[in-house]
Amino acid sequence: MITVEPQKANRLIHSGQVMLLSSRLEMRANLMAVNWVTWISCDPPLLGVSIAPSCFTHKILRQSGDFVLCIPDASQVSLVHEVGTISGHSLDKFRVFDVPTHWGQMVKALTLTYSIGAMECEVVDYQKIGDHGFFVAQVLYAGAEESVWDGRWMPEAELLFYVGGDRYLAGGRIVQPKVRVDYYTLRDRRLKREQEARDLFDAPSRRIPEDLR
Amino acid sequence: MITVEPQKANRLIHSGQVMLLSSRLEMRANLMAVNWVTWISCDPPLLGVSIAPSCFTHKILRQSGDFVLCIPDASQVSLVHEVGTISGHSLDKFRVFDVPTHWGQMVKALTLTYSIGAMECEVVDYQKIGDHGFFVAQVLYAGAEESVWDGRWMPEAELLFYVGGDRYLAGGRIVQPKVRVDYYTLRDRRLKREQEARDLFDAPSRRIPEDLR
Repeated sequence: MITVEPQKANRLIHSGQVMLLSSRLEMRANLMAVNWVTWISCDPPLLGVSIAPSCFTHKILRQSGDFVLCIPDASQVSLVHEVGTISGHSLDKFRVFDVPTHWGQMVKALTLTYSIGAMECEVVDYQKIGDHGFFVAQVLYAGAEESVWDGRWMPEAELLFYVGGDRYLAGGRIVQPKVRVDYYTLRDRRLKREQEARDLFDAPSRRIPEDLR
Repeated sequence: MITVEPQKANRLIHSGQVMLLSSRLEMRANLMAVNWVTWISCDPPLLGVSIAPSCFTHKILRQSGDFVLCIPDASQVSLVHEVGTISGHSLDKFRVFDVPTHWGQMVKALTLTYSIGAMECEVVDYQKIGDHGFFVAQVLYAGAEESVWDGRWMPEAELLFYVGGDRYLAGGRIVQPKVRVDYYTLRDRRLKREQEARDLFDAPSRRIPEDLR
């Protein structure tokens, strides 16, 4: 065996299933890729998730107190990778990436419509452990896509596991995100679209003759 | 989506990498299969592991304060499954399953010789969360088998993921344990072997003539 620096030893176990954590504080929502997640307790059903205090999600969760843990599959690898590499501080990822969402059953945070599983969670405990914040949360509601769930995930579910860099493992094969366009281009395109919508909305008023105004 | 009972929602995320947790208290060692493990902090390097208080490992860790998290690969699926389905309360798994071990660098617990990775951990915090005990531990030393490690796991590493029942996923295929013989037979065989050893050791004394005793 060769020695692995303890600070990098997370690479020994980090190849966990990737999930998308959706949080919301009033009008501002955020989406984050996480895999430092573990189940903790059966009854009550509790899970723990470790998030760096520098993350925008950390800031939201400290105030909102709930989130949805959404389970993506291989078809969503590009979204997962983009969401996982960009900070939500300066960017509304839901809008930039046009992610369809709907209201959950029990929490304020939004559920991703095209995820194959979702857990609506309420934060019940928080503590700073090392350089991260550790959120303990109770699962209030959970759902799974019935075409790939028979009480457990069926092999067709193609869950995503992160294996480092831009490589993910799903259904036994390596899948890589298609980096569509860089997110600044996406943001500009979105802003342009919004401007066009505003122009369209303003347009009738412009057509009103000067003397009638 | 169909509704999943929150108490069973761990099945949505439980398909994590399976590891073997080795612990020791003086002459009594134990081995347990775990996958309720997450990385928590980069610096210091901390991880968290959730263990039911009914487990023998829980009892040992509360007193010993250290453990080794060993990473098995597909070739060890039978060991993982047997270790994961039997309690160490009444059985010394290291002896019953003839698991080769060696001393670690920093801790009292033993390292499994044929694991492809190992993390020697010291418990730094413990708390009861829900119905489980949550151990936060600092990684003091970590090592990986260099033939499958290049700073990250290479695809050849064939890490084991648990997918329910007696099914594991490794390198994209389902692997299943070969249940060799039931563990009671193994224990009986072991006891018989030990008895034979004792008989052999006692034998010379029996050969000493009655009058010389």
